[in-house]
Amino acid sequence: MRGTRRPDSLFWVDSTRIAGNRLSLDPDESRHLLRVFSADPGTKFDATDGAGTRYHCRLVEDHHGEARAEIVEREEGAGELPRGIDLLVGLPDGRAAEMIVEHAVPLGIASIVFVACRRSGRDELGASRLERLERIAIAGVKQSLRSKLPTLGTTTSLMAAIEVVRGGDRFVGETSGLAELRLAEEPPSPSVTLAVGPPGGFDEAEEAALRAAQFKPISLGPSRLTTETASIAILSMARNAIYRN
Amino acid sequence: MRGTRRPDSLFWVDSTRIAGNRLSLDPDESRHLLRVFSADPGTKFDATDGAGTRYHCRLVEDHHGEARAEIVEREEGAGELPRGIDLLVGLPDGRAAEMIVEHAVPLGIASIVFVACRRSGRDELGASRLERLERIAIAGVKQSLRSKLPTLGTTTSLMAAIEVVRGGDRFVGETSGLAELRLAEEPPSPSVTLAVGPPGGFDEAEEAALRAAQFKPISLGPSRLTTETASIAILSMARNAIYRN
Repeated sequence: MRGTRRPDSLFWVDSTRIAGNRLSLDPDESRHLLRVFSADPGTKFDATDGAGTRYHCRLVEDHHGEARAEIVEREEGAGELPRGIDLLVGLPDGRAAEMIVEHAVPLGIASIVFVACRRSGRDELGASRLERLERIAIAGVKQSLRSKLPTLGTTTSLMAAIEVVRGGDRFVGETSGLAELRLAEEPPSPSVTLAVGPPGGFDEAEEAALRAAQFKPISLGPSRLTTETASIAILSMARNAIYRN
Repeated sequence: MRGTRRPDSLFWVDSTRIAGNRLSLDPDESRHLLRVFSADPGTKFDATDGAGTRYHCRLVEDHHGEARAEIVEREEGAGELPRGIDLLVGLPDGRAAEMIVEHAVPLGIASIVFVACRRSGRDELGASRLERLERIAIAGVKQSLRSKLPTLGTTTSLMAAIEVVRGGDRFVGETSGLAELRLAEEPPSPSVTLAVGPPGGFDEAEEAALRAAQFKPISLGPSRLTTETASIAILSMARNAIYRN
């Protein structure tokens, strides 16, 4: 039945395409709404520009293949955790980096910094790789019904990454350490920063830098984890600690 | 330096290749030890047959390319959690199933049952797909330094999978539910079983079957997760609950 099924996808809309209570979808998203979902004028759908708002929309017209819609309601912070989680991760290979973005975005990450650690054996990410990761992040925001697009970055050293860490709780994934990832309660920390080593782990200077910057070691259990599995495991624990609070 | 570097890999040895205090590696593993690590007689290395033991070995000879070794010490349960975690997961597509195995094995899973749920839209796994997943599982045991190879299975329905669940705590990942995955303490549960729906989720009959079988809903947070991300997230929480206890 045309026009009666509400798409359960979230549509991506660049902020430049929003003006007052009107927005238009780009060619790809328009095709998805108008062709895949066969949406008629009047069909309701949701969209986000990744800046923290979910737009509840109603399709106004199919203007030569461009979906033009009216914003019926704005919902701030839909699908978002009450606090941000930032991840500093020692740069692994390309597939592992993609896997981290693919899982970390639905799990609510606010930012990921890929750090060229001493044992990463590679330079920081180039612009084209970051763009590719950003496309995966946008797909993750849409699939998981979030409303904020995480920021992705890269640095040439762990020390450079630590310098710009936000205030709040800081944890580093280790083979031993605290078994419970517990957030500060008084005052509640505004954000949580997690650090995970590259394949081969942090070296001694990097571990000392993390200790100096108050990163608490959190045990990730008795077996050896890859960088990508460790990232998702400690993120799952931090996410749970946040929505549990 | 030949023969002086102790390989940090774990070698796989089929149980049929172990006799008393001697073992031999298969052609692939022999090549890895003798060529990649350039191991000389006397080199120490570790191996497992996936049945729960780590074998601390010393290379005796390179017999026409076959690595023959002496078992110096047996270590039971190395790299293993004190309790088993079983996962019943609604069958997703092939890549997602592989991703679940790839992450769940290092995270300590004891068994994974891929369930052809009503909304899976596909039959249970065939023998060749299970074999492919088993190869990924063996690689995961080696990489993560575990000593038990998880069992992989498949069923035609959730009800069939529930019938053979072990005793112990049971949790199902949901969008709402308990925020804390807490294990029974008196008596401590022998194992933990987790259930995660297929893409599209469990249907009403399946949810009723899970409730009837005492699966407690655990919240996985405010955003929508894919089957594979949800599996890794709830497994990370269960793993942490086990080694924290």
